[in-house]
Amino acid sequence: MFWIAPIAAVTALALAAAFYLNLLSQDPGNARMQHIGNLVRRGAMTYLSRQYRVMGIAFAGIALLFGVLAYGFDLHSRWLPWIFLSGGLFSALAGYIGMQTATRASTRTAQAARSSLSKALKLAFRGGAVMGLVVVGLGLANVVFWLWLIERMTPAGDDAARLIMVTTTALSFSVGASLQALFARVGGGIFTKAADVGADLVGKVETGIPEDDLRNPAVIADNVGDNVGDVAGMGADLFESYCGSILAACALGAAAFATRPELQPAAILAPMAIAGAGLFTAIIGMFLVRVREQADQGQLLTSLTIGTGSAAVLLLIAAALVLHALGLPGPWGLWGALVAGVVTGVVVGQSTEYSTSARYRPTLRIAERATGGPATAVIAGVGTGMLSTAIPILTVGTGILMAFGLASGFDRAAMELGLYGIGLAAVGMLSTLAITLACDAYGPIADNAGGNAEMSELGPEVRARTDALDALGNTTAATGKGFAIGSAALTALALIASYVEVLRIRLSEQGHQVLALGNHAEIGLLEASLADFMVYYEVNLLNPAVLVGMLFGAMTAFIFSGLTVQAVGKAAAMMVEEVRAQFRERPEILAGTIEPDYERCVAISTTAAQREMLGPALLAVLAPVLTGLVLGVPGVIGLLTGGLCSGFALAIFLSNAGGAWDNAKKHIEAGHHGGKNSAAWRAAVIGDTVGDPFKDTAGPSLNILIKLMSIVAVVTAGITAALSWW
Amino acid sequence: MFWIAPIAAVTALALAAAFYLNLLSQDPGNARMQHIGNLVRRGAMTYLSRQYRVMGIAFAGIALLFGVLAYGFDLHSRWLPWIFLSGGLFSALAGYIGMQTATRASTRTAQAARSSLSKALKLAFRGGAVMGLVVVGLGLANVVFWLWLIERMTPAGDDAARLIMVTTTALSFSVGASLQALFARVGGGIFTKAADVGADLVGKVETGIPEDDLRNPAVIADNVGDNVGDVAGMGADLFESYCGSILAACALGAAAFATRPELQPAAILAPMAIAGAGLFTAIIGMFLVRVREQADQGQLLTSLTIGTGSAAVLLLIAAALVLHALGLPGPWGLWGALVAGVVTGVVVGQSTEYSTSARYRPTLRIAERATGGPATAVIAGVGTGMLSTAIPILTVGTGILMAFGLASGFDRAAMELGLYGIGLAAVGMLSTLAITLACDAYGPIADNAGGNAEMSELGPEVRARTDALDALGNTTAATGKGFAIGSAALTALALIASYVEVLRIRLSEQGHQVLALGNHAEIGLLEASLADFMVYYEVNLLNPAVLVGMLFGAMTAFIFSGLTVQAVGKAAAMMVEEVRAQFRERPEILAGTIEPDYERCVAISTTAAQREMLGPALLAVLAPVLTGLVLGVPGVIGLLTGGLCSGFALAIFLSNAGGAWDNAKKHIEAGHHGGKNSAAWRAAVIGDTVGDPFKDTAGPSLNILIKLMSIVAVVTAGITAALSWW
Repeated sequence: MFWIAPIAAVTALALAAAFYLNLLSQDPGNARMQHIGNLVRRGAMTYLSRQYRVMGIAFAGIALLFGVLAYGFDLHSRWLPWIFLSGGLFSALAGYIGMQTATRASTRTAQAARSSLSKALKLAFRGGAVMGLVVVGLGLANVVFWLWLIERMTPAGDDAARLIMVTTTALSFSVGASLQALFARVGGGIFTKAADVGADLVGKVETGIPEDDLRNPAVIADNVGDNVGDVAGMGADLFESYCGSILAACALGAAAFATRPELQPAAILAPMAIAGAGLFTAIIGMFLVRVREQADQGQLLTSLTIGTGSAAVLLLIAAALVLHALGLPGPWGLWGALVAGVVTGVVVGQSTEYSTSARYRPTLRIAERATGGPATAVIAGVGTGMLSTAIPILTVGTGILMAFGLASGFDRAAMELGLYGIGLAAVGMLSTLAITLACDAYGPIADNAGGNAEMSELGPEVRARTDALDALGNTTAATGKGFAIGSAALTALALIASYVEVLRIRLSEQGHQVLALGNHAEIGLLEASLADFMVYYEVNLLNPAVLVGMLFGAMTAFIFSGLTVQAVGKAAAMMVEEVRAQFRERPEILAGTIEPDYERCVAISTTAAQREMLGPALLAVLAPVLTGLVLGVPGVIGLLTGGLCSGFALAIFLSNAGGAWDNAKKHIEAGHHGGKNSAAWRAAVIGDTVGDPFKDTAGPSLNILIKLMSIVAVVTAGITAALSWW
Repeated sequence: MFWIAPIAAVTALALAAAFYLNLLSQDPGNARMQHIGNLVRRGAMTYLSRQYRVMGIAFAGIALLFGVLAYGFDLHSRWLPWIFLSGGLFSALAGYIGMQTATRASTRTAQAARSSLSKALKLAFRGGAVMGLVVVGLGLANVVFWLWLIERMTPAGDDAARLIMVTTTALSFSVGASLQALFARVGGGIFTKAADVGADLVGKVETGIPEDDLRNPAVIADNVGDNVGDVAGMGADLFESYCGSILAACALGAAAFATRPELQPAAILAPMAIAGAGLFTAIIGMFLVRVREQADQGQLLTSLTIGTGSAAVLLLIAAALVLHALGLPGPWGLWGALVAGVVTGVVVGQSTEYSTSARYRPTLRIAERATGGPATAVIAGVGTGMLSTAIPILTVGTGILMAFGLASGFDRAAMELGLYGIGLAAVGMLSTLAITLACDAYGPIADNAGGNAEMSELGPEVRARTDALDALGNTTAATGKGFAIGSAALTALALIASYVEVLRIRLSEQGHQVLALGNHAEIGLLEASLADFMVYYEVNLLNPAVLVGMLFGAMTAFIFSGLTVQAVGKAAAMMVEEVRAQFRERPEILAGTIEPDYERCVAISTTAAQREMLGPALLAVLAPVLTGLVLGVPGVIGLLTGGLCSGFALAIFLSNAGGAWDNAKKHIEAGHHGGKNSAAWRAAVIGDTVGDPFKDTAGPSLNILIKLMSIVAVVTAGITAALSWW
């Protein structure tokens, strides 16, 4: 069983290499196309190298701090700095490879779109598949490697506590991956939206030149941004989600069977083996995505749906086999939890589609309201976004209760088993990530191919084909997004439970044998349930420290969003100035006789992204540490749960409002309510611009924030519990 | 000691009557001014009578339901329907009187403003004082009356449980008051903002006629809206806050001394006596607001500050005397908690001022960003609003910890005493409500006076004077707002604790003698601490029912805001259509030769408000009941705490973003960034319009929502605990 995961990881990486080489052998198009492609790739790589330098410094600093603490203080493993660093490093590597692939795939997709839709789909999807396989392959390989190494290096001893310790130590990998993901999402989000807003506001609205017109100085930055934000950002984000969910489930597995140590190895193996099996089924799904030469859009969609659907169904079968083979008690209950996770992800994805697609009422209403002007368009989008929190939260809530109930056999005393079920539900959602990410990542590739086609003046039929691909991608990406959102809530919850497990280890290392529960009773440390720990640490909902922690959690989510939204606004304002200045100072640019200075726009976005991403990252790292130092364990648990609830709702609101404005605008552009250049269209463009930082910067970053705060709390639990003022 | 409160209440009502009669004797202005004043008053009364009819039906239905449940089921008192109805009735009465006063005061203020600024201030402030005295007088009289009556009617028995039962029964008064407040805030907010947005978008932006121009068909509706939303809505809101904070503190007082029944009466009397003393100091403060005939704006501000400041300082002295006289243990600790509350309110108020006044950086930055167009103006406002949650939440958090710590003598085992301290902190904030509300309510009176002056063509110097008064009001109102926001969080927290007390009574009525705490111990029911109840009901933060409840709480806050924002958007769209249609169909309106049809606009706002306010109200009432039925006590406590945290942060975000946009627009109108009619101004107007439903509909209603949900949970605790599926 152990070998499923490493073999799957190696297979995925080998296949990714093969796909990549095959991609390189395709026709990269004419000289002009290649020139534009190179401009975009150079911009993207400039950004990435600067981003990695800034992050390298941040990571080195934190690793040093961890090192000092690990050797001199109460951190529970000396491996911590290295595990942390590798999390950041491999996430960065996945982002780098993804970006190299995406920039190359988009010119080739544009070239393929000159001949047919299905050829273009094939190339774009292959580009996305490289990304998916690299992210998942590297992630799974690391998870397996570190768990194996830490287990080997941990001295023998009390078995139950030992494996809890091994698995919680491995969670430090997630700290590195999460921090890197936060940098990538926030930095990438600021870069891409500053460029996008700047390009749109001055180019489209003020000057009236079309999108992706080479006369617009911000156009290259805008296309670079699509890669930086959507490809590198999303890759790092999902790398973190994937590894985090598996590691959290392993830790909960070890904890769930603390009183039956003989079952612990199987409980730890299960998430890894299921993830490995899911990787194989995802690969099978990829090969099922086959398109005939002259396929139309509907057939392409069917083909993609067959691929992702088969992967999911096969995964469920494989998971049932794995759970039975491992001999865990109540395997059907655990399997039921996994199914609950997958169903939750699908429903959340569909509700996202409902809330943001122009085929449904909410988005159509925004388009309608745009006829009343920008203010009513913005109000309608905000209202729609807020209302759209209902279905995802009801679904995730039901999913949590089902996963918990099924895994624990509806026995509320078996809380640890129930939480393990929640961990498995998250793993279930993300097991087929390789193919869902492929469907997600091929969208930006198609989008960039369209930009390239436009700038290379390849003619409208090419752009129409890439637009069709892009629209297709939006539909298939819905499920992937649902999995990402749903798993974030579940993983955060699992991490909060891990936090308590770390406290258990700490007490055991300090020689505690029993827990004193108020004045009433005592209980052995390893027999103590999580509920007992809540009593011991006075974590109850009427303790003001818990409630104040919860308020701080809500506040952190809002401040984090405010910082990222402000950062985009600030950077966009600079970009607007720059584009206006270039047009004003050199009128030949608009005439098309000289090339604008693209690099200054790229530099503005890059500098702004580097400068502005530090604040939000610092907030995410410091909030749990400071709360812990002041308010202790009750405050930290309050912070994490409060941040989870508010942050989750806020993330859905921001993402869906932004998505709905975007599609309302496209709906009007398709000829409704007066079509392009009508008053309604101008109002919708303003709505879309407001939504840009919502959906591509603040929204997705919040999902990382809630996990990063939890994982930082887990790693620093020893320090905060020891030094807490409360 | 008992007599302080009733005497204070009667004094306040008598003084209000005297002020009102004096107001009526003032010069109501020329015929045209009176005609316009009558149009506005008639519109306001039409709205109010329709609103009260709809609410009458809702209240009758709920009271009937309560009646059936009280006699046939497990509700803990047969008085419940009557107490509930009186809460709604007296709140409505306070709103009605406030509106009658405000509409009459505004024409007289306009007339006074023709001669001097200080005369106008005197009349407007007197109008506000009537409102403040009526709200506080009626509120305190009811609180005293019901507590007295219920105490007399409750059969003798175990003293400790008896007084807990009396005080929690009296909380039902808050259900009626809160529900009425929610209707008034949501309905009034929808009315006023639909009219405002409609009048501004078509009148100011599209047609280019000035504000408050009689040619605008929506202008009367707009002026009616100021009364309906700002006067009646705010009055009902603060009536609810005031009564709720006193009643919650009384209930917590009874619970805190459950093991020392001899101290319970004093603990229950303390909040009432402090509120009564605060009413006297507020009256003294009112008489200290004296202005010389030729005072300038600065002197007027000083005079108002002296009034509110003296009232607050005198209150603190009086509270110290009351607490000592009552012989409660640790009186200085309790007094410290009260001081912590007052300081929290002042700081929150100042931070609101900082976040929304054009004298400070955040609002100035929004004005600056408006030069980049509407999108960047909106983004900047959203960012500012989100960041503005920091200071209030940090302050309220510190206030909660200080009040809890000081009252409990920093002894964490004395949790009940600490919670009583939090209740007293809320009472401290609201004790001088009569004068802070007077300062708050005189703003809309001055605003309406300005509208009247404009429409009656009294000349620019009169408008300038009323504008100066309005600006002054904004500054003094900041503290009042801080008290309202801060007390909402504290009262909600106190109500959550009361919820647990109700469960204790229920168990005791069912004959339980002991609580079983897990498998480990048992404890006597009355000796059991709140923490023990948390164990008994499995309310811990890793119980999925609690976490799912918290997620639902966050969701409820977002859906509630979404519903109210959407409602304004929808109603405003109808209003825009109507105003456009009137201008189109009868061009004579714009020429000024015929009067537009004002009543159709009033009718549109009225109908929309009635229709759209039911959904949010239903949500607030059903959320705790349904959550209780499905997830039981853990789910309800999760819902309330999750709703409190998310709702509180969301409310601050929405209110401050709206306020900042408003003042950014005014800053530009004052001549910055190109002044009125510049591109920046148009962008700022769009920001202001987006902010209208944020700051005047969703934001303030959220503060009521979090309390209403808690209080509904308290009243239905018996049913949900008995029937819960979980």
